[in-house]
Amino acid sequence: MRADSLAGTGPFGQVGIAEVAGRIRGGEITAVEITEQALAAAHGLGTELNCFVTVDDDGARRAARLVDAELAAGLDRGPLHGIPVGIKDMIATAGLATTMGSRHFAGHVPHIDAAVVSSLRTAGAVILGKTQTHEFAYGPTSDRAATGAARNPQDPSRMTGGSSGGSGAAVAAGIVPLALGTDTGGSVRIPAALCGTVGLRPSQGAVDVQGVFPLAPTLDVVGPLAGSVADAAIGWWALSAKPEGFGARWSQCTPPRLPDGERVRNLRIARPNCDLTERVEASVRTAEQLAVDALDGISTVSGSGSVAHVAHGAHNVHFLHGGLPLPEIDETEGPYYDIQSAEAYAVHAERMRKAPELFDAEVLERLQAAAEVPGWRYVQALDIRRRLRASVLERMSAVDVLLMPTVPLEAPEIGQRDLGQLDLGQLHLGQLNSSQLNSSPATGWTGVRAALLGLTIPWSLLGFPAISVPVALPGAAMRGSVQLVAKPGQELLLLDAAALLESSLAAHAVN
Amino acid sequence: MRADSLAGTGPFGQVGIAEVAGRIRGGEITAVEITEQALAAAHGLGTELNCFVTVDDDGARRAARLVDAELAAGLDRGPLHGIPVGIKDMIATAGLATTMGSRHFAGHVPHIDAAVVSSLRTAGAVILGKTQTHEFAYGPTSDRAATGAARNPQDPSRMTGGSSGGSGAAVAAGIVPLALGTDTGGSVRIPAALCGTVGLRPSQGAVDVQGVFPLAPTLDVVGPLAGSVADAAIGWWALSAKPEGFGARWSQCTPPRLPDGERVRNLRIARPNCDLTERVEASVRTAEQLAVDALDGISTVSGSGSVAHVAHGAHNVHFLHGGLPLPEIDETEGPYYDIQSAEAYAVHAERMRKAPELFDAEVLERLQAAAEVPGWRYVQALDIRRRLRASVLERMSAVDVLLMPTVPLEAPEIGQRDLGQLDLGQLHLGQLNSSQLNSSPATGWTGVRAALLGLTIPWSLLGFPAISVPVALPGAAMRGSVQLVAKPGQELLLLDAAALLESSLAAHAVN
Repeated sequence: MRADSLAGTGPFGQVGIAEVAGRIRGGEITAVEITEQALAAAHGLGTELNCFVTVDDDGARRAARLVDAELAAGLDRGPLHGIPVGIKDMIATAGLATTMGSRHFAGHVPHIDAAVVSSLRTAGAVILGKTQTHEFAYGPTSDRAATGAARNPQDPSRMTGGSSGGSGAAVAAGIVPLALGTDTGGSVRIPAALCGTVGLRPSQGAVDVQGVFPLAPTLDVVGPLAGSVADAAIGWWALSAKPEGFGARWSQCTPPRLPDGERVRNLRIARPNCDLTERVEASVRTAEQLAVDALDGISTVSGSGSVAHVAHGAHNVHFLHGGLPLPEIDETEGPYYDIQSAEAYAVHAERMRKAPELFDAEVLERLQAAAEVPGWRYVQALDIRRRLRASVLERMSAVDVLLMPTVPLEAPEIGQRDLGQLDLGQLHLGQLNSSQLNSSPATGWTGVRAALLGLTIPWSLLGFPAISVPVALPGAAMRGSVQLVAKPGQELLLLDAAALLESSLAAHAVN
Repeated sequence: MRADSLAGTGPFGQVGIAEVAGRIRGGEITAVEITEQALAAAHGLGTELNCFVTVDDDGARRAARLVDAELAAGLDRGPLHGIPVGIKDMIATAGLATTMGSRHFAGHVPHIDAAVVSSLRTAGAVILGKTQTHEFAYGPTSDRAATGAARNPQDPSRMTGGSSGGSGAAVAAGIVPLALGTDTGGSVRIPAALCGTVGLRPSQGAVDVQGVFPLAPTLDVVGPLAGSVADAAIGWWALSAKPEGFGARWSQCTPPRLPDGERVRNLRIARPNCDLTERVEASVRTAEQLAVDALDGISTVSGSGSVAHVAHGAHNVHFLHGGLPLPEIDETEGPYYDIQSAEAYAVHAERMRKAPELFDAEVLERLQAAAEVPGWRYVQALDIRRRLRASVLERMSAVDVLLMPTVPLEAPEIGQRDLGQLDLGQLHLGQLNSSQLNSSPATGWTGVRAALLGLTIPWSLLGFPAISVPVALPGAAMRGSVQLVAKPGQELLLLDAAALLESSLAAHAVN
């Protein structure tokens, strides 16, 4: 870890939600006290990292006092009861400024909560404040916003990634254990990967987006960023849990225990075989290999042939060493950008007519380009999406979870757009063809933005749930990451796999 | 009727499906005999009108012989068993050329039937041949196609309207009692109105379009053109009937009896109040008034106040004299063309790259313009469609059926595109504003194509079922028409209302 790293230095840097929830119930600390710690960190550490746009001191204290009163009166809303959380500034909070990172919405205060904010409040969470977002969530770097760039806690000179950069930084710094992000092309997973936290993009449509400002409606989802897989699972539980039947107490729903023995009785994991996943830096390849080894370490005890498997506690993990051919994900970039561009411009067309000067220059440029996507190409892209999705689902009939990198490179410097300074010698070049080498000096990406999004947009386009899990790299200043992907609707299985990976990586690191 | 009118001069000119079905079962005529009559008419009359692209002599004779054998063996498939029908040349027929009216598909022979063709064959219909279509169904005039213009049986110098012009002409001439068309912006209703037949556009999505060449997939539907409402209902039955449960005999489904007393016990009809329906020629206004009088004649016996109603046989018809405010349909044109253009170009993009010279010049020009619709406007148009649809559904909560013109003018001459020659003195100008008058010398339409589609596209965009019913105009050479519209899924109620209108008009004409 770097000397100037701020990662894990906040009140939640070394403890998870369940532990704090236990301390609150054990009388070791009150919700008001933990909230005060988080507020202090948000003002101090958070200011250094520029990860909060608005800190709601009054609202958070009021909510925390209510929690302590409710718990004293015997009302226990579950593990989030009294836990401070951050909300990306694209998500409406009643009475609390919600600015989309844009001068167009300076001082904008919504009247009602977004559906996901209501869910968190119902689960007892304390809304600490609004986290920084790339302007209108339209960028994977979080260094372009009306309130300035967010900074990476692992190295404050580097970008957080985005667009949920403030949520990534606030969680990685330990100011809050959980924050909401939105993910259109990778906006939860990318900052999770760059900041060294966990970030879950749920299946398309799995979470109610009412009250969430759109980037591209058929691609937008809301997901949690958290310090651990267990905490991400609690976030997912709060976003997705519904009381069973009229009159049931929502508080009686309980968060998932991971991994679930029954669910992962026969878990089949594979790397996808495709060109995209070869276009990565050496450190990314190392992180991926560590993850493969960790899971393979579980699975090779009784392995034989190309499919190795092992009883890991109550579960069998099968690692398919040959990989799964998945050429479809190499075809996702074109249709993704056609869909995202047309939908994003439709959202902003009126603002572009009336006050284009209020956009950040880079966002403005992207919108101007987005306006040029012809309707017929959007229509064809929707068709391609349907076809690719059906095809990938069919190929995945014998695989539950895919493992691949989340991003192809380490966090770039804030403001960096060019890949020219990457060290060619560090690249894994085996699978690159000459046209890819010619199109950029590095891994064939046209620049930082395209590279950051390159490995996340396939699952955005296809609507599959995906999670980024940090991987500690021996001797490195920055954490690496890998991305796990499951079939639509399989968030719990995905979280199971992520929990297995996380614990196995920790065990490897100890050994 | 004009001296040179060919309307109703074919074998089905004066008889409907039920009557012919009765004659076949009564032994007065065989399916082979009626098919021979239809084939002769298709070669003679059909050639004069250029309404068939392909006549399938061998296939039709084979099918007719099978019908006679099945009936002799006691298998009765219902009223269509042995009835010759026409199929628009956009709809795939196994082993029979299907050319989309285009040189791109000259000689193209599909291997399998479209779903709707299978349905007709299952109901025992005899496929007589393929009817002329405007090239790729991309035009409301049916005078631009690789095989030339279709001619209107009421006046062969005039256009049939389109794009299902061949089906309209074949039915109006009495060559077949029933033909299939496709309707994207009005392609069933417009030729029905111009040729003087009945044409039903079902609700969006109500009929399986598998095997139908697309024009604009989110707008395309298949519907019947027929000589009477009863015959259109038999067509609708064949397209929509499904056997109930595994093992049920499809032939046990029976066509609807119209009007159904229970269904129309309290039928509420109104004219929409909007600008669009005021932009019509005087003869169109006359036809509409005749239809209003016919329905009002049913309903005023015990009428009082603004809502008049009467028991008509077993049914009560309420005619809302004040009309229903429906400003939404004045806003449908823009989003309709944005959606249609983007989707149509997506269908043809590859042909436009590879062989643009094979398109008709006018269709080519439309496609070139269609390519220019930006993606974001397509996305906004989809949103507007959802909003307008919800709004119209809400306004129609107290109304079952709307009555309005199908087209704003009589059938123009073949090839006519300019509205300049219309007689200003004949126009109903009361509701026109000066900008509308300035934009064209007639009713504010920019030309023949825009005018023909003007009153049908609102229901295409919104996905509501609509039917065009002919209205005989005293002393006029050409029949007029009106359009009835119902809520999505209410085809049977719509057919009930159309049957009431048809019988009431006939009664008025006799009186």
